[in-house]
Amino acid sequence: MQVVMGIDPGAANLGFGVVRIEGSRMVALDGGVVETSSELPMEQRLERIHSSLAELIEWHEPKAMALEDLYFGKNVHSAMAVGRASGAAMLAAAQRGIRCFTYTPQAIKMAVCGSGAAGKQQVQRMVGTLLGLPEPPSPDHAADALAVAICHGGSVGRQAAVEEAEGVAAQGLAG
Amino acid sequence: MQVVMGIDPGAANLGFGVVRIEGSRMVALDGGVVETSSELPMEQRLERIHSSLAELIEWHEPKAMALEDLYFGKNVHSAMAVGRASGAAMLAAAQRGIRCFTYTPQAIKMAVCGSGAAGKQQVQRMVGTLLGLPEPPSPDHAADALAVAICHGGSVGRQAAVEEAEGVAAQGLAG
Repeated sequence: MQVVMGIDPGAANLGFGVVRIEGSRMVALDGGVVETSSELPMEQRLERIHSSLAELIEWHEPKAMALEDLYFGKNVHSAMAVGRASGAAMLAAAQRGIRCFTYTPQAIKMAVCGSGAAGKQQVQRMVGTLLGLPEPPSPDHAADALAVAICHGGSVGRQAAVEEAEGVAAQGLAG
Repeated sequence: MQVVMGIDPGAANLGFGVVRIEGSRMVALDGGVVETSSELPMEQRLERIHSSLAELIEWHEPKAMALEDLYFGKNVHSAMAVGRASGAAMLAAAQRGIRCFTYTPQAIKMAVCGSGAAGKQQVQRMVGTLLGLPEPPSPDHAADALAVAICHGGSVGRQAAVEEAEGVAAQGLAG
C-alpha cells in the first residue's frame, strides 16, 4: 500500500491529487487546486504553493510525488513559469525526504487511457472510472494531477505484481 | 546603500553574485557557483540550491534578488529545468521577505554594456570594470550573476539619483 501525490504544475493554478495504491486498486484520497493571485509577485506565489503542499504532505504522508513535465508545446517563457511552480512543489517534497518522478503528458494519457493522444474529457472520465468516483473529477487541474498520480501508481502496481509473482516463483523453486 | 543578490539560474550550475550599491558606485561582495551533480535526483539538487542560497542570504542580508529570465532561445525542456532552479532560488528569497526581480538577457547586456547584443566576454570585462575588480570575474555563471545584480543596481542607482535630485530641488523650492 502506497500513497502517491500527483501534481499538475502551474503558477496561477497548481493541481494536486492524492491517491492510495492497494495492489491493482487505486483510491482517491484528496484533490484540488492551489490558486494564487496574479497580483502577487511570483516569489510570494511560489511561497504559497510551497507551504500549501508542505501541509498536504504532512497530512497525507505520500511516499512519492509525481509531476507532469513539459517537453514541447508551450513557449519558453511559460515553461519557465511552470518550471518555477514545479520547483517549489519538488522542494516541498525533498525537504521531507520524498522522491519525485516526472512524466510527460503523452505518458500520462497513455497510462490512463491507453493512448498518448487522448483528449482532456476522455482523461477526466477515465480518472473517474479508475478511482471509482461517482463522476469525473473537476476542476481540470485536479483531474490532471490525479492522472499523474495514477500514471505513477500504475508502474508501482506493476512492480508490486512482478515482485509478488517473483516471490511465488521463488517459493515454488524453494519448495 | 543597498545589497543586491544576482542569480544566473541553472540546475547544474547556478551562478550567484552579491553587489553593494553606494549611490552610483557598486562593490562586489561575493560571487560563485552552486554546483549540483547530475547523478542526484532533481528534487535533491533543488534542495541543495535552496539551502545554499538561504545561507548566503543570511550572511549578506540582500534587500533584493535579481534573476535572469528566459523568453527565447532554449527549448521548453531545458527552460523547465532552469525554471525549477529559479523557483528554488526565489523561494529562498521569499521565505526571508526579500523581493525578486527578473531581467531578460538582452536587458542585462544593455545595462552592463550599452548593447543588447554584447558578447559573453564583453559582458565579463564590463562587469570587472564596473565593480573595480583587478580582472574580469570567473567562472561565467558567477560573472553573469554579477551582471544581473548590476542591471538591477543600475535602476536602484538611478532611482536614488532622482530622489536625491528631487530632494535638492524641493530644498531649493523650500529655500
